[in-house]
Amino acid sequence: MSILVVGSVALDSVETPFGTADRVVGGSAVFFAASASMLSKVGLVGVVGDDYPFEQLDFLSKRGTDLSGVERAEGESFFWSGRYSYDLNSRDTLETRLGVFADFKPQVPEALRDSRYVFLGNIDPVLQMEVLDQVRQPKVVVCDTMNYWIEGSRDALVELLGRVDILMVNDAEARQLAGDHSLLRAARWIQEQGPRYVVIKKGEHGAILFGPDWMFFVPGFPLEVIFDPTGAGDSFAGGFVGYMASVDSQEPEDLKRAMVYGSAMGSFAVESFSVDRFHDLKEREILHRIMEFREITAFEHQLERSRG
Amino acid sequence: MSILVVGSVALDSVETPFGTADRVVGGSAVFFAASASMLSKVGLVGVVGDDYPFEQLDFLSKRGTDLSGVERAEGESFFWSGRYSYDLNSRDTLETRLGVFADFKPQVPEALRDSRYVFLGNIDPVLQMEVLDQVRQPKVVVCDTMNYWIEGSRDALVELLGRVDILMVNDAEARQLAGDHSLLRAARWIQEQGPRYVVIKKGEHGAILFGPDWMFFVPGFPLEVIFDPTGAGDSFAGGFVGYMASVDSQEPEDLKRAMVYGSAMGSFAVESFSVDRFHDLKEREILHRIMEFREITAFEHQLERSRG
Repeated sequence: MSILVVGSVALDSVETPFGTADRVVGGSAVFFAASASMLSKVGLVGVVGDDYPFEQLDFLSKRGTDLSGVERAEGESFFWSGRYSYDLNSRDTLETRLGVFADFKPQVPEALRDSRYVFLGNIDPVLQMEVLDQVRQPKVVVCDTMNYWIEGSRDALVELLGRVDILMVNDAEARQLAGDHSLLRAARWIQEQGPRYVVIKKGEHGAILFGPDWMFFVPGFPLEVIFDPTGAGDSFAGGFVGYMASVDSQEPEDLKRAMVYGSAMGSFAVESFSVDRFHDLKEREILHRIMEFREITAFEHQLERSRG
Repeated sequence: MSILVVGSVALDSVETPFGTADRVVGGSAVFFAASASMLSKVGLVGVVGDDYPFEQLDFLSKRGTDLSGVERAEGESFFWSGRYSYDLNSRDTLETRLGVFADFKPQVPEALRDSRYVFLGNIDPVLQMEVLDQVRQPKVVVCDTMNYWIEGSRDALVELLGRVDILMVNDAEARQLAGDHSLLRAARWIQEQGPRYVVIKKGEHGAILFGPDWMFFVPGFPLEVIFDPTGAGDSFAGGFVGYMASVDSQEPEDLKRAMVYGSAMGSFAVESFSVDRFHDLKEREILHRIMEFREITAFEHQLERSRG
């Protein structure tokens, strides 16, 4: 099953304690596609300016990603620059220039309108709905958002939730959206607005999937060095949706594995700047990491035990 | 196998968004014993003043806990009062009065000197060493500490680590002790000072066990209401050591289960004020929660899969 992703296609300048990267490719749709394309076929809708180093997306095309939906407009590409704190736990945005992204009107090419899996990256919920209007028969709609839209476009966002199967947000966004500090109650509130599933990402602390009557927890993979946290969340989403589409199932056991694929792909993303780690990532490296997740989380226990 | 625990035996006055508790029993040794005594036999060494409501510890005696090592001194018991923020993520200490705890010199009664499992609650590392000197042949020594001793008694603490099998601290303490933001590297540094195992507690985000060449992760149990976070860490320790002593094993599979018992007992502790939840906690309730942990973390995956 192929996946349609809509989101930002950006240039990032990033400073971390380990070095700097200048005007490298980034954005939610690019990180998502770099990750998801390891597992499924992806079609990308976005916009870039005439300054975009399109050749840096060649690795996506080689992996079968359809980039025909990436509009090339006159002007500057979406640019973001930021600096991470020494412990990588916080970051300051130094500059944001929306460029051609300010007037982005997503146009889904005819060839991608039959996509069955849709990932709506973090853009205006009104645009996210316009994307859905262009997809003929979406089977699974996964949606991200952020504090900016929760505050400024709440009504549109809540309306959108009625058409979403899986909302995937971080813990602060879930709490803000539901107006409840308890993640459990926040997830239930979101589910009442429409989504059958809510995935709450907690960065280094992992992620929780809330289903109709069950939940699943995956830790963040403990890495010796986190090189650049940029894009971890979208890479998580790419792993989750990429795996889900590859098995085309919503069985709980498959969604649990999708969570582990998400956390695995997020852990790869932070090992390098930009999407560099995905350039030559091998399927056996992914499987190896999945197995490592199993080793650090699996335990067995008998219901009866003798008291010592 | 029986467990010796040394630590504070306190009176707590606590304010949470859900209510207040006034001068209820608390302290690291009490929370530890309330939790561990569900799983193993416990002996407690500590000190209280002549104002202590000793009858509130009756439930421990009924569960076979040896309280002969709790000295009753003239004066006031260790008193702590604090107020939690609305989201329970931070707390302000309103008052701390050390009382008789200021002159605490742990004396291990003869009957407890053959304990094979020792839990050194968070007290002066010099006193922690004096406790170890009084135990004839400890098999497993588990130790807690805090920022106060890391800053003020670093040399004694590092010396103590050479005699400790398992250091159990929170993430901030591990980072501070090792001077390294990476938990993975911090754990390795601590292991180089002596402990074979390091357990890093992350509150609602769970805990990680670092072994010689493996690690294990357990999440915090997602609760609808966290009533009072006080004592969660010591209850975790009680579940961990209590289970470990009950099976008297250091096999990785047993230590993994010990981690889950720790997180389960920590999750019970926060459901009520003080140690109330442990008063009539049933073994089947514990086993039920262990199984819930398994459900929210277990996944299976084949090494080979077909690409969708």
